[in-house]
Amino acid sequence: MNAQHSHPAPSPASTPVTVIGLGLMGSALAATLLDRGHPTTVWNRSPQKAKPLADAGAHVAATPEDAVAASGLVLVCVLDYDALHAVLDPLAEAGGLAGKSLVNLTSGAPEQAVEMAAWAGRHGAGYLDGGIMTTPPGVGNPEMMFLYSGSEAVFEAHRPTLATLGDPLYLGAEPGMASLYDSALLGLMWATFTGWLHGTALVTSDGTTAADFTRIALRWLTGAVSGFVTTYAPQVDAGRYPGDDATVDVQITAIDHLIHAAHARGIDNSLPHLLKSTMERTAAAGHGSDSYASVIEALRGPKRR
Amino acid sequence: MNAQHSHPAPSPASTPVTVIGLGLMGSALAATLLDRGHPTTVWNRSPQKAKPLADAGAHVAATPEDAVAASGLVLVCVLDYDALHAVLDPLAEAGGLAGKSLVNLTSGAPEQAVEMAAWAGRHGAGYLDGGIMTTPPGVGNPEMMFLYSGSEAVFEAHRPTLATLGDPLYLGAEPGMASLYDSALLGLMWATFTGWLHGTALVTSDGTTAADFTRIALRWLTGAVSGFVTTYAPQVDAGRYPGDDATVDVQITAIDHLIHAAHARGIDNSLPHLLKSTMERTAAAGHGSDSYASVIEALRGPKRR
Ligand SMILES: NC(=O)c1ccc[n+]([C@@H]2O[C@H](COP(=O)([O-])OP(=O)(O)OC[C@H]3O[C@@H](n4cnc5c(N)ncnc54)[C@H](OP(=O)(O)O)[C@@H]3O)[C@@H](O)[C@H]2O)c1
Ligand SMILES: NC(=O)c1ccc[n+]([C@@H]2O[C@H](COP(=O)([O-])OP(=O)(O)OC[C@H]3O[C@@H](n4cnc5c(N)ncnc54)[C@H](OP(=O)(O)O)[C@@H]3O)[C@@H](O)[C@H]2O)c1
Repeated sequence: MNAQHSHPAPSPASTPVTVIGLGLMGSALAATLLDRGHPTTVWNRSPQKAKPLADAGAHVAATPEDAVAASGLVLVCVLDYDALHAVLDPLAEAGGLAGKSLVNLTSGAPEQAVEMAAWAGRHGAGYLDGGIMTTPPGVGNPEMMFLYSGSEAVFEAHRPTLATLGDPLYLGAEPGMASLYDSALLGLMWATFTGWLHGTALVTSDGTTAADFTRIALRWLTGAVSGFVTTYAPQVDAGRYPGDDATVDVQITAIDHLIHAAHARGIDNSLPHLLKSTMERTAAAGHGSDSYASVIEALRGPKRR
Repeated sequence: MNAQHSHPAPSPASTPVTVIGLGLMGSALAATLLDRGHPTTVWNRSPQKAKPLADAGAHVAATPEDAVAASGLVLVCVLDYDALHAVLDPLAEAGGLAGKSLVNLTSGAPEQAVEMAAWAGRHGAGYLDGGIMTTPPGVGNPEMMFLYSGSEAVFEAHRPTLATLGDPLYLGAEPGMASLYDSALLGLMWATFTGWLHGTALVTSDGTTAADFTRIALRWLTGAVSGFVTTYAPQVDAGRYPGDDATVDVQITAIDHLIHAAHARGIDNSLPHLLKSTMERTAAAGHGSDSYASVIEALRGPKRR
């Protein structure tokens, strides 16, 4: 048994890597590894997607078994966990995962990552779960975050190789943590996107361009709004939310102006209405004079505190 | 009639300014003006709030009439438009606003700003409407945005004085524009806050601190998410949303992981459910393979395009 994942990795550019799944993301991962000089073996269900990578120097394996056999470090990035099991189960049953470092970059729920870690352990593989916090064009950019959780040995052994894909952040041994963070960060992204698009719909209906509004919106987001969030995070940890800058009650008054202006322009107000009712629940629970951070009390389940 | 607002302003620190309304925000405005050496006259309905400013050198007027008479530039920052009219109507009827530059920093709907501009014009005042994009502690910080719209003459004449409060951005002659931007930016802020708090509730229920998550969340927001928004803004202006990085359909799949993980932890899922249904409406309208920017089509009213 080749316990490669528990040994220090060889110098990064010479570490052989296998990439399974050559969709948009898997192809970007493999192309980046090739570009940085890694001997790279690839496999995809639909073989034609391997063609550009073969042209760039990848070894194209005929089967998932062959692909996994080629490298100690195996990255898998397929659509979902059903696809993951469809590809890996047969070779794992045949002992093909023993001693491998398996890095799973397929998106899923934290509970799926936890199950997968146990499954990988039963088949003799070290397991690291990953969340890719960028789109394919961002792969290889060291500013972009790749979140990992699970085997610290796998992470430490392969950190230099993982660092070619983006900035690798290790969130701990609990395998579900990367996925939990991934979901939490995507939720923040969708909320931000939708708030930005609602605002963009508002101002563009009065003749401003989205580009003009967005310059100001991004300055607001990365300046003042990020500053408020920085102030509020320790309030959440302390469970005390002093409303000395702006209170929930003040925001409830202010959101009516948004609702009014958007309504007058025929814009869907579901989001502002939801935000307002969440603030109102927060105020009703006694936080009207607290900061917006107290809204977390209205989001948390009844079981907490 | 003293048409002061149409003349170039004297050198900034010597420009006399009146501030009406000494709540949290008005007090911060007056304190900053005093600190930068402006002869500052103040008035507030509840006179005790003027005390700290008087100690700092402000002239405390006995009536709104006296306050307005003291300076060519009058900033008003009270709770709402009802308060604004309660304070200004009597003195305007008596001709006290003639020739004044009135800068209204009271929050309201764009339509209220438009009415107020007409009202000010009828009483002989130049009118600038403002939106303060910070909290009181941020007043005086040149990074913080103060949005203005309405009389360009008032803006240009008093730009140096306005610049002591924050970075003054002029959005055009349409008086409602500052308020429209203000609402749009606050909507973005509330959506971002709530998405961040939902994610924080998620990860803290598994033992992470809000501070740890927030460091990563802010890096995500100011890096990758801001990059996506920058990419999407010209798509909105073009009305074409190529989904070559990540499509609406892919996000619909991914949000189920968030909903699942939050549900398992007893966290309120109203926001993710709303985001998902908005994406689903977008996909149903034919944008499943487009980028998230196409969600604006589901937000805009039926009258548009
Ligand atoms: N794209 C992004 O921006 C992004 C960002 C972060 C995370 N991710 C995650 O990365 C993963 C892949 O995303 P993607 O953008 O690369 O998606 P994609 O372009 O749709 O590719 C899906 C991949 O999964 C494979 N697959 C699907 N069902 C399969 C099955 N039953 N058996 C074997 N292979 C199967 C596909 O093979 P075929 O080619 O044969 O169909 C293809 O390689 C997803 O979990 C996604 O959430 C993507
Ligand atoms: N605080 C912020 O972070 C912030 C940020 C941006 C914009 N704003 C806007 O700034 C404005 C003032 O906010 P604030 O934080 O200063 O609020 P605040 O602390 O509650 O102060 C409200 C002010 O309005 C006055 N007022 C209320 N009703 C009045 C009436 N009928 N007649 C005369 N005066 C009346 C109050 O006088 P009394 O002292 O006599 O009650 C007080 O001076 C609001 O429109 C707010 O939306 C605030």
